[in-house]
Amino acid sequence: MLHILYVIAIIAEAMTASFSAGRRDMDYVGVMIIAWVTALGGGTIRNVMLGHYPMTWIEHPSYLIITALAAILTTFFAQHVARQKKLFLLLDAIGLVVFTILGCQLAMDMHMSSIIVIFSGMITGCAGGIMRDVLCNDIPLIFRKEIYASISLLTGFLYVVIFNFMGDAYHIATLVAFFVGLGIRLLAIRYDWSIPKFVYRDDKEQKE
Amino acid sequence: MLHILYVIAIIAEAMTASFSAGRRDMDYVGVMIIAWVTALGGGTIRNVMLGHYPMTWIEHPSYLIITALAAILTTFFAQHVARQKKLFLLLDAIGLVVFTILGCQLAMDMHMSSIIVIFSGMITGCAGGIMRDVLCNDIPLIFRKEIYASISLLTGFLYVVIFNFMGDAYHIATLVAFFVGLGIRLLAIRYDWSIPKFVYRDDKEQKE
Amino acid sequence: MLHILYVIAIIAEAMTASFSAGRRDMDYVGVMIIAWVTALGGGTIRNVMLGHYPMTWIEHPSYLIITALAAILTTFFAQHVARQKKLFLLLDAIGLVVFTILGCQLAMDMHMSSIIVIFSGMITGCAGGIMRDVLCNDIPLIFRKEIYASISLLTGFLYVVIFNFMGDAYHIATLVAFFVGLGIRLLAIRYDWSIPKFVYRDDKEQKE
Repeated sequence: MLHILYVIAIIAEAMTASFSAGRRDMDYVGVMIIAWVTALGGGTIRNVMLGHYPMTWIEHPSYLIITALAAILTTFFAQHVARQKKLFLLLDAIGLVVFTILGCQLAMDMHMSSIIVIFSGMITGCAGGIMRDVLCNDIPLIFRKEIYASISLLTGFLYVVIFNFMGDAYHIATLVAFFVGLGIRLLAIRYDWSIPKFVYRDDKEQKE
Repeated sequence: MLHILYVIAIIAEAMTASFSAGRRDMDYVGVMIIAWVTALGGGTIRNVMLGHYPMTWIEHPSYLIITALAAILTTFFAQHVARQKKLFLLLDAIGLVVFTILGCQLAMDMHMSSIIVIFSGMITGCAGGIMRDVLCNDIPLIFRKEIYASISLLTGFLYVVIFNFMGDAYHIATLVAFFVGLGIRLLAIRYDWSIPKFVYRDDKEQKE
Repeated sequence: MLHILYVIAIIAEAMTASFSAGRRDMDYVGVMIIAWVTALGGGTIRNVMLGHYPMTWIEHPSYLIITALAAILTTFFAQHVARQKKLFLLLDAIGLVVFTILGCQLAMDMHMSSIIVIFSGMITGCAGGIMRDVLCNDIPLIFRKEIYASISLLTGFLYVVIFNFMGDAYHIATLVAFFVGLGIRLLAIRYDWSIPKFVYRDDKEQKE
């Protein structure tokens, strides 16, 4: 079940990545690389951090093909796809929560401490989007807008707490983390929630 | 033979990296770091992805010295070196193809699937240039101009197909992939070939 | 002793990272991530390069908490903290030297060659700041201003030379590298030392 959602999520991420690349006038190779980085980059960074080999996409090279195809096809139906904005926000929200839970599970399987389990979920959920924005020469969106990474933190936190306090309750932890995380993400989009910003200008900079 | 071409290629990459750093007014340490990232970064990222240790430059620390020296020396003869533009385009093209083939070989030695072998070649050929552009705060050139990454894909594809279909024909695969890849790259430079771009502006952005 | 200085240094790095994030109007999650990357990123990149697992912060997850707290608290006392500029320059200089020495020690414990030991120190000292600047969409500061990475190189060089020529003189090497590196860094700040820049404009670019 989580696996099917994962495949749907990487396809959705690849499709949205395609638009990021299009806004920067990239060619088809650029589109493909941005799609890979966005869809598979978070899990890759997590695996590198945890020292977990092989990478997911080395075990399943078909993920590379699926995401590349999804991104390229999106360029042909861009106007049509762009109209499905709500569907993509939903798929992206599902992706964030599913990536996070899978990241937590992997760290847990490696017997990491609770803090690292939550952290692993957050890397999996967020690092792909951060790298996409760095490659497109933007300041990463999740540092500035909407409660995106916070949802990842919360989902991971719920997962760990329920798992530990209810005696290895794998299924319940997954279900609760999934639905609460997804629910709050959708509410955050609907009501435009955000967390406070830290705006700082030092004197020297102001004078310039 | 491939090894000699590899050393020539990393020197050429370090020298061109020097110009990228100079366009951004970097100091000599910046020049050196950009040279390392450009010349050795692709292979490093590939090794991290595949979990192949130690890194090439840890086995051969002299590569760090050679590339640093090449980049620093270039700054002293910048005007002279810049005039050899055609030579550098040739060396860069050789570098792309040699890096790609070496990346394919490594993945093949690790018994990776064909898709990963091609992908490994592409990372080796392209990731160094991508990281150089990110550190110089540019949108990576290979996402936008010329068929660069595509040549890497094609070279890797030829290598894998010939290797598999001709019964582990290591030498033939290397030779064909090298000359076809290099030839098309040089033709692409000569006739300014490019692949289609995906240009996308969403309504909201247009209004802004 | 070095360990205590290390903890002080990651706290100081996290606090200065907080200002970088504030200059880009990041929210609290952005502040936290920039703090982690700045304080712990250098050691992480070094571990990945050397293939040394687990990461420092996986062994000591408390470092993640300490640096996140330091960065968040800084946002509440920003004006007050900003006034302590000299203290932070001192702490940052200590951090640079301590990170470098710890990076050298790790590579030495792994029996790396002298060049790699120095290189490992430099990655540990500088990569965190480079990644902070990339995520904030700046050209890395250390490529352009002040002798920062050069101090790291010098500190590592002193450490390796003394260690090797005085017969595994671990304590003397650490002490000399620490005080000479720190001293020169402070002099560099005081007298605004810098190393030459390489400024290059090619004809095509000038015409544009």
